[in-house]
Amino acid sequence: MEHFKNVAKIKYEGSKSKNPFAFKYYNPEEVVLGKKMKDHLKFSMAYWHTLTYTGTDPFGSGTMERPWDLTSKDELEIAKTRVKVGFEFMEKIGMEYFCFHDVDIAPQGNSLEEFQKNLDVIVDLIEKEMKRTGIKLLWGTANLFGHKRFMNGASTSPNADVFAYSAAQIKKAMEITHRLNGAGYTFWGGREGYETLLNTDYKLEQDNFARMLHMAVDYAKEIGYKGQFYIEPKPKEPTKHQYDFDSATVIGFLRKYNLEKHFKLNIETNHATLSGHTVNHEIRVAATEGLLGSLDANQGDLLLGWDTDQFPTNLYDSISIMYEVLRAGGLKTGGLNFDSKVRRASNKPEDLFLAHIAGMDSFAAGLKIAAKMWEDGVFEDNLKSRYSSYTKGIGKDIVDGKVGFKELEKYVFDKKDIDENESGKQEYLEALINQYILG
Amino acid sequence: MEHFKNVAKIKYEGSKSKNPFAFKYYNPEEVVLGKKMKDHLKFSMAYWHTLTYTGTDPFGSGTMERPWDLTSKDELEIAKTRVKVGFEFMEKIGMEYFCFHDVDIAPQGNSLEEFQKNLDVIVDLIEKEMKRTGIKLLWGTANLFGHKRFMNGASTSPNADVFAYSAAQIKKAMEITHRLNGAGYTFWGGREGYETLLNTDYKLEQDNFARMLHMAVDYAKEIGYKGQFYIEPKPKEPTKHQYDFDSATVIGFLRKYNLEKHFKLNIETNHATLSGHTVNHEIRVAATEGLLGSLDANQGDLLLGWDTDQFPTNLYDSISIMYEVLRAGGLKTGGLNFDSKVRRASNKPEDLFLAHIAGMDSFAAGLKIAAKMWEDGVFEDNLKSRYSSYTKGIGKDIVDGKVGFKELEKYVFDKKDIDENESGKQEYLEALINQYILG
Amino acid sequence: MEHFKNVAKIKYEGSKSKNPFAFKYYNPEEVVLGKKMKDHLKFSMAYWHTLTYTGTDPFGSGTMERPWDLTSKDELEIAKTRVKVGFEFMEKIGMEYFCFHDVDIAPQGNSLEEFQKNLDVIVDLIEKEMKRTGIKLLWGTANLFGHKRFMNGASTSPNADVFAYSAAQIKKAMEITHRLNGAGYTFWGGREGYETLLNTDYKLEQDNFARMLHMAVDYAKEIGYKGQFYIEPKPKEPTKHQYDFDSATVIGFLRKYNLEKHFKLNIETNHATLSGHTVNHEIRVAATEGLLGSLDANQGDLLLGWDTDQFPTNLYDSISIMYEVLRAGGLKTGGLNFDSKVRRASNKPEDLFLAHIAGMDSFAAGLKIAAKMWEDGVFEDNLKSRYSSYTKGIGKDIVDGKVGFKELEKYVFDKKDIDENESGKQEYLEALINQYILG
Amino acid sequence: MEHFKNVAKIKYEGSKSKNPFAFKYYNPEEVVLGKKMKDHLKFSMAYWHTLTYTGTDPFGSGTMERPWDLTSKDELEIAKTRVKVGFEFMEKIGMEYFCFHDVDIAPQGNSLEEFQKNLDVIVDLIEKEMKRTGIKLLWGTANLFGHKRFMNGASTSPNADVFAYSAAQIKKAMEITHRLNGAGYTFWGGREGYETLLNTDYKLEQDNFARMLHMAVDYAKEIGYKGQFYIEPKPKEPTKHQYDFDSATVIGFLRKYNLEKHFKLNIETNHATLSGHTVNHEIRVAATEGLLGSLDANQGDLLLGWDTDQFPTNLYDSISIMYEVLRAGGLKTGGLNFDSKVRRASNKPEDLFLAHIAGMDSFAAGLKIAAKMWEDGVFEDNLKSRYSSYTKGIGKDIVDGKVGFKELEKYVFDKKDIDENESGKQEYLEALINQYILG
Repeated sequence: MEHFKNVAKIKYEGSKSKNPFAFKYYNPEEVVLGKKMKDHLKFSMAYWHTLTYTGTDPFGSGTMERPWDLTSKDELEIAKTRVKVGFEFMEKIGMEYFCFHDVDIAPQGNSLEEFQKNLDVIVDLIEKEMKRTGIKLLWGTANLFGHKRFMNGASTSPNADVFAYSAAQIKKAMEITHRLNGAGYTFWGGREGYETLLNTDYKLEQDNFARMLHMAVDYAKEIGYKGQFYIEPKPKEPTKHQYDFDSATVIGFLRKYNLEKHFKLNIETNHATLSGHTVNHEIRVAATEGLLGSLDANQGDLLLGWDTDQFPTNLYDSISIMYEVLRAGGLKTGGLNFDSKVRRASNKPEDLFLAHIAGMDSFAAGLKIAAKMWEDGVFEDNLKSRYSSYTKGIGKDIVDGKVGFKELEKYVFDKKDIDENESGKQEYLEALINQYILG
Repeated sequence: MEHFKNVAKIKYEGSKSKNPFAFKYYNPEEVVLGKKMKDHLKFSMAYWHTLTYTGTDPFGSGTMERPWDLTSKDELEIAKTRVKVGFEFMEKIGMEYFCFHDVDIAPQGNSLEEFQKNLDVIVDLIEKEMKRTGIKLLWGTANLFGHKRFMNGASTSPNADVFAYSAAQIKKAMEITHRLNGAGYTFWGGREGYETLLNTDYKLEQDNFARMLHMAVDYAKEIGYKGQFYIEPKPKEPTKHQYDFDSATVIGFLRKYNLEKHFKLNIETNHATLSGHTVNHEIRVAATEGLLGSLDANQGDLLLGWDTDQFPTNLYDSISIMYEVLRAGGLKTGGLNFDSKVRRASNKPEDLFLAHIAGMDSFAAGLKIAAKMWEDGVFEDNLKSRYSSYTKGIGKDIVDGKVGFKELEKYVFDKKDIDENESGKQEYLEALINQYILG
Repeated sequence: MEHFKNVAKIKYEGSKSKNPFAFKYYNPEEVVLGKKMKDHLKFSMAYWHTLTYTGTDPFGSGTMERPWDLTSKDELEIAKTRVKVGFEFMEKIGMEYFCFHDVDIAPQGNSLEEFQKNLDVIVDLIEKEMKRTGIKLLWGTANLFGHKRFMNGASTSPNADVFAYSAAQIKKAMEITHRLNGAGYTFWGGREGYETLLNTDYKLEQDNFARMLHMAVDYAKEIGYKGQFYIEPKPKEPTKHQYDFDSATVIGFLRKYNLEKHFKLNIETNHATLSGHTVNHEIRVAATEGLLGSLDANQGDLLLGWDTDQFPTNLYDSISIMYEVLRAGGLKTGGLNFDSKVRRASNKPEDLFLAHIAGMDSFAAGLKIAAKMWEDGVFEDNLKSRYSSYTKGIGKDIVDGKVGFKELEKYVFDKKDIDENESGKQEYLEALINQYILG
Repeated sequence: MEHFKNVAKIKYEGSKSKNPFAFKYYNPEEVVLGKKMKDHLKFSMAYWHTLTYTGTDPFGSGTMERPWDLTSKDELEIAKTRVKVGFEFMEKIGMEYFCFHDVDIAPQGNSLEEFQKNLDVIVDLIEKEMKRTGIKLLWGTANLFGHKRFMNGASTSPNADVFAYSAAQIKKAMEITHRLNGAGYTFWGGREGYETLLNTDYKLEQDNFARMLHMAVDYAKEIGYKGQFYIEPKPKEPTKHQYDFDSATVIGFLRKYNLEKHFKLNIETNHATLSGHTVNHEIRVAATEGLLGSLDANQGDLLLGWDTDQFPTNLYDSISIMYEVLRAGGLKTGGLNFDSKVRRASNKPEDLFLAHIAGMDSFAAGLKIAAKMWEDGVFEDNLKSRYSSYTKGIGKDIVDGKVGFKELEKYVFDKKDIDENESGKQEYLEALINQYILG
């Protein structure tokens, strides 16, 4: 049964196309810097936003027209239908990866046993569809924030039973991810944080959080799961303060608890800006430590203080993201997961296509522009020249550890006039990017 | 004497040029929608940022290399030299307008008399340069925020002497603006607001502010000055709360005090975002009331909470600004004043050119893209269609004032099913803009 | 049937009490500045937060233990029970007012007719309870933001049918409010705004918004409803931009559309801070225009960018709110409505009491401290002295309109030295407030 | 010569005093929790704000009346006078510590040699005054952000000469600090960060930053300086992104570069909020790692996006700071440095006293209230109870590392119903604090 009858397979038609249901820039097989676009841009469908989000927000109920949700009154049956809908969507839009939380794919029932059974039914179906289509799992995860049991956190809950429950839920989600050959498994701790320090044992919660991650590492080893673990930073929302505040905080945490060999970061644009950073900053920090893992593709509204999870259409972001990725040597196990939801007023099934096309085209254009910038080398050459004083003379001595305060003071006294500072040329560099964009 | 010896007159070389000192998009004589680009984009040099800003910030002293400031120890002589530097700059970059505060152009001396004398000397010189070059004054203004006498406000000071002093200073600045045929005169009340309500008589301050504006209107009439008065909204900084918070607030104020026939708004991108709005919102609000006056061209950094006054390079802003301007039928007396300062690390005289080229090219590209969008009519057609229910049936009755609650309730009862909502198509519309940008 | 069996009527026990279920500062009959505390502080229960909020947030489902919601499977029966629960709650906590949206009190059913019938059933019950207890209605309103039909706005929807539906819903809500002798009727336009200007006819939407308000004014006249209309400002959330941005914007809008005689403002602390203002600023602006109507009592978290609607416990806020209210001569028809929700982790029915006690005690302490400050007159005396230069000499001439620019310039020339500025003494004034708090 | 003739030594007069020039809560010799108030609260004068700040801001020049700055035209003479003024101020206000940057105390002259000579002259004088009065140095530092040579950073400058210059400047500042028995030496890297990633070699800059800190550690060892090194986090301003973003970021950096044994944190309230955190969060993070060093006492305005450095008058802050300090076992080498500047409109010398009294009283009251809360143990008891599930049964097994995913899953299956979550009681806890404040 076809669920998106009005939409045919989306094709690349080039930049002059006026067809809303066509790619203008994303040409999957086109080769950029020696690699196909689709391999630079491992686009992934987010199961939750695309298949289960109905348009609710804190002030309103669902708005979305989703005919498949009306095909049955049995939740498990609807869940089965959603698998079909999802794979039809991915096939039509030409997306080769997806991501999911356990609760997205199957109804939770009335007990953990029931939930696990439901999961098994659905995972069978997903496995079949994956085989049929060749579509792959970018990463899986467990939702440890939606249910009321997690109201005070999951592994950082003051209630040890909730820690235990979380462990059981992660265990199963990891098993499913393993079975489906998931390239990664992600931890986003939406409730791992605090509402007020007045009632929080910060140290115990941090320690417990690390304990849970070590258990996951141990269990992966036990079952032979070799996929990549990711932690996804977010500073706040739903929690007042979330422990995985930003890249730097997560990296410091991993290093403290000897976890930095087992985890990489899954970075999201909207989470970056909520923490006061640009997304390229967050990527640069992770990449500098060799910890860049995967990316959540979306964008926020910087005049709004919450996670709007908009589809990414800002070219400055897509260019700078792809430039940082190229600079880091590409994503290995990771991809670009559309953790983006159609606006509440984009209420038609067709909007799912229009929104993903908008996002995929934005990243495709971003890739092509970033590749050109990288190939031309103008930004990297500027860097080399700007920092060249550290490749010779006193600068080299500093880098080589040959001098200390006394030698440096003597150098200043001897030299009298220190070298003049060169202009940072920010305006020129920004104009240069515009020139790359406008062609 | 030539002050920018290393820089020749900036020419249009087209989008493929690799010459940093050339326009890639700004082609002044090129006709867009029946009007020359330079007449759509009446670029103006901001005297303060370009000629007197030295690179200071709250944590550091000046960084800028400005050889002309070292040509004399006499402030008046330096002021004269700056006039020459400014006109040379405008000629070379091809800018036909400028804006100034009184204190930018002449030293204040030790008394109002001395200041006025210094102003007269400099205004003679400016007048000559204007005749020689054909460059015009977009607007003038008085700086009523820098001197310590204004520490508690100017027209809103609790000190009546300061009100008087402000009046005297505005009077002279208006006279100069009149003499130089200034197309407008601007009020930006940087200290017109409060630091704490604990010591503030809000009502008296508002009334006094209005009194000052009425005096200005009266005086303009008296001296026959027919230029346009502008108020420039800004929500805060340097003052904790500034009375001219945003477009809506200023318009409400003008209407309350019967000033709305005498003033229009001078809108700035960075001030817009500081008040929680996009710049296109601020323009739309003003234009809807017929009160769009002029624009300050710059941009802020939305991750920073202060007025960074960066050169405008974001194409989304320049497109949406120019689109709103086209929609409003163009600026009449107003223009695009570069209230932008080169970054503190862009410390060479040449950076002044590179930065203005970046900004002018950004607006030129923005104009061309916006003009195409306007010509194609796709956004306006979408609007017409989206709101078409108000042109017929019950919608028309609502607009025509023919129905009230009872008729509308009856309509709902009779109709049973209200019409379904159409998708807002935000993602599609955003992708469309990218297509216009990328070509 | 008693729903809060574990909680007895809350009594005043004084500041030394260690009983969590007692007032420490709120002593309803205590006289402050010649009026009982309960008449200064007309506390109101918000039906939605107290009776229907379940603890959902954008990332999680309900957490609250609300046994009464489990007493039936019939929504209308539950709605009846909630009436009882609510009045029991108000009686026990000693609250004499409440507020509601139409959808809070009765299930919407499948049609407007059904909704109206359900409303009639519940309103009968509410009326009885009001008679039984003496509890009064502070204000009523219609929820025009939750249902998907309002996804693009209510009176500002591009869909005229939605305008009609909104009118029908307001009509009924006004009739109910009238029947229950509501002291006021509030308009909060949560979806009256836009998501993107790209698809928005700003002018038509503003006009339509005004049309709806005029219809309400006309209908009130027709049915003889004499209660006060309120508009509640909020800058954003759920909508990207909400037309009723802040006090100044709403007042400007009212004045433009000749509505300022019919509406006052309902000001909320959390909405104030979301718009970049303190709540006392918002009150001062409204009071200065004679448009202060009523207050929503809550607080936000200034490090979070959304409407947290926390119970108000910050004494600086409660003091400054009550001081502004005293300064404005008190609220007339308005009161203090607890538009506050217990934290998601405050999941027990008892937390409803603890939270309201926290809020009521905070306002009671705020009132007492503000009253002392007002009585002592130290802040008002400081104001009088600070602005005294406008009561004589040149200052008086300015206020009396006797002087213009020429006279003022002459004054400055003649006087030579303008009067020195006095210190604003902000730190001292802040310390003084602490002294009032600490006693 | 007496510089503050109008102000006598500030005394404690108790909470009922109406004398603005008296302490109401700060009673230095009063014993709280077994220690004198003055030893809990090692208040320190910030040389820069108190002695050299003139009231400038980005839009205005100095406002402050500082007669001592007019006593000579020779900068070194003025610098000498300022030493006297500072010690007179500290003696009169009863402050036993101070902090300085090298450039605060002596004019920089035209070369490093000249600067060092000037420093030696002034340090002689300071040493004498310290002996005379018993006043001590809390910490010293070098200003590596004000001069234009630091426009692109100090140790993170792309210019190796600037690195060398910075080293020379730190060397001297450390020597002075050592000579004056400074309890600590602070690094605040105002320009250590970037304006745009487009021209930044993030990795080299981080490495160089660490190199400089290691050199400092080595040099301290060499000269036998045993004081505590501090790093002061700040996320931005003046720089767009500052590397020492917040406590967590700094700690991660220290750990990465093996510096965590040599540095502690100097935490500032206004910097905390600029980074999106409360100050108690920042202290808790540092204290949990054993890295709490010292505190900068001030407060920001959360509706403003820059470092306002206001005097700390918010009791909620002073209570929570002192509570966290008590919880951490007190500050060892650190104190409370008033990195606060009088408001620009608090322009009289007397305002320096009023502002410091406001801040000192606020912390004194905060200490007393926090001590009572700590002594009563109600918040700590709540914590113990809240997390008690980790002291027995499955919780203890988790903490003891005895269980993994399989055991925990089995536990959940066996147990069926996980323990219910307790309420977080946030509102109650907040009300409790108010009760401690109001008494």
